[in-house]
Amino acid sequence: MLITFEGIDGSGKSTQISLLKEKLIQLGHQVEVFREPGGTDVSEMIRGMLLNPDLEIDPVTELLLFSSARSQLIAEKVRPLLEENVIVILDRFYDSTIAYQGYGRKSMPIEQIHQINAAATKNLVPDFTFYLRLSLDEAAERTKNFEKDRMERAGDSFYKRVFEGFEHLAKTEPRFKTINAEKDIDVIHQNIFNELEAEL
Amino acid sequence: MLITFEGIDGSGKSTQISLLKEKLIQLGHQVEVFREPGGTDVSEMIRGMLLNPDLEIDPVTELLLFSSARSQLIAEKVRPLLEENVIVILDRFYDSTIAYQGYGRKSMPIEQIHQINAAATKNLVPDFTFYLRLSLDEAAERTKNFEKDRMERAGDSFYKRVFEGFEHLAKTEPRFKTINAEKDIDVIHQNIFNELEAEL
Repeated sequence: MLITFEGIDGSGKSTQISLLKEKLIQLGHQVEVFREPGGTDVSEMIRGMLLNPDLEIDPVTELLLFSSARSQLIAEKVRPLLEENVIVILDRFYDSTIAYQGYGRKSMPIEQIHQINAAATKNLVPDFTFYLRLSLDEAAERTKNFEKDRMERAGDSFYKRVFEGFEHLAKTEPRFKTINAEKDIDVIHQNIFNELEAEL
Repeated sequence: MLITFEGIDGSGKSTQISLLKEKLIQLGHQVEVFREPGGTDVSEMIRGMLLNPDLEIDPVTELLLFSSARSQLIAEKVRPLLEENVIVILDRFYDSTIAYQGYGRKSMPIEQIHQINAAATKNLVPDFTFYLRLSLDEAAERTKNFEKDRMERAGDSFYKRVFEGFEHLAKTEPRFKTINAEKDIDVIHQNIFNELEAEL
């Protein structure tokens, strides 16, 4: 089973992934978590480039680098683990490319991004995508004291478009499960687990 | 004007590019040469990964990394130079991706590679592509004492498919000018210049 978490910065993805992983392990499952971009030697090198505030990266190059890191993670780690019945949880997946590079940066037409996503993942589709939905105001409040990396310095109108991208995906992709990320941590965790329980 | 050089390793691209550059400068043109992958900070970092014999890189990842390096080179250097009427010469361009990753590694369907090439270059097409045509036997003889990098360790059947890829492009792409790369260096140079002279 492949489970992905999506949402803007500050929506609590890492916290919820930790709680879910712990819960699934308690229930006797094998679980592996990866963050995008990253998870392999090649992908971590690419991550270093993408987050480096000193590099000027063209928007199309950025999209292709995220896709390169993803392709390597899927081929080297995710596919082999899924074949061994390990539950894989991803902290961001290709929906983030649609939201950030497609809606946010307008790097290329959305349909073309879908094609590159399909190539990079060889058509792997998540079983569940948890979209941790947070208003932009609340996100700004939660992240105001974070030090910003290259990706996070793109300005408010950029984040508004990213948010709209996630909202559009939530409406059009049946695998998206929208979770209210403004509730208490334990409530959010329970809501996520409730969605999965029938499948497990 | 954008001029690209293609052909298998050992076909003499670098030698011919140097001679052509010198000739064009003598005639009063501004000329810039780039090798792929490379030519920008980001692209050179990617080059380091692609040629590193210690990294295991998935074939789709490899294709996307070449495309990332190309995208950055085009956006940051080639387009601005072409707008200033500089003649840009590229030592390999996206035709190499068709030949090496498409025909050689069979990373993904050729049509999908054409789509990614178009995205990475924002539809930039060379004015002239000089295909330095060398038989595989002659190429093996010329490169037998070279130290091999990661890309060059792929075996004879791989190179046979790459050769067939270039041959197919030469037959189907009108911008391809096939040059016999087994002639003397000065004769090859003259043949290349003859093709360009009418344009200049």
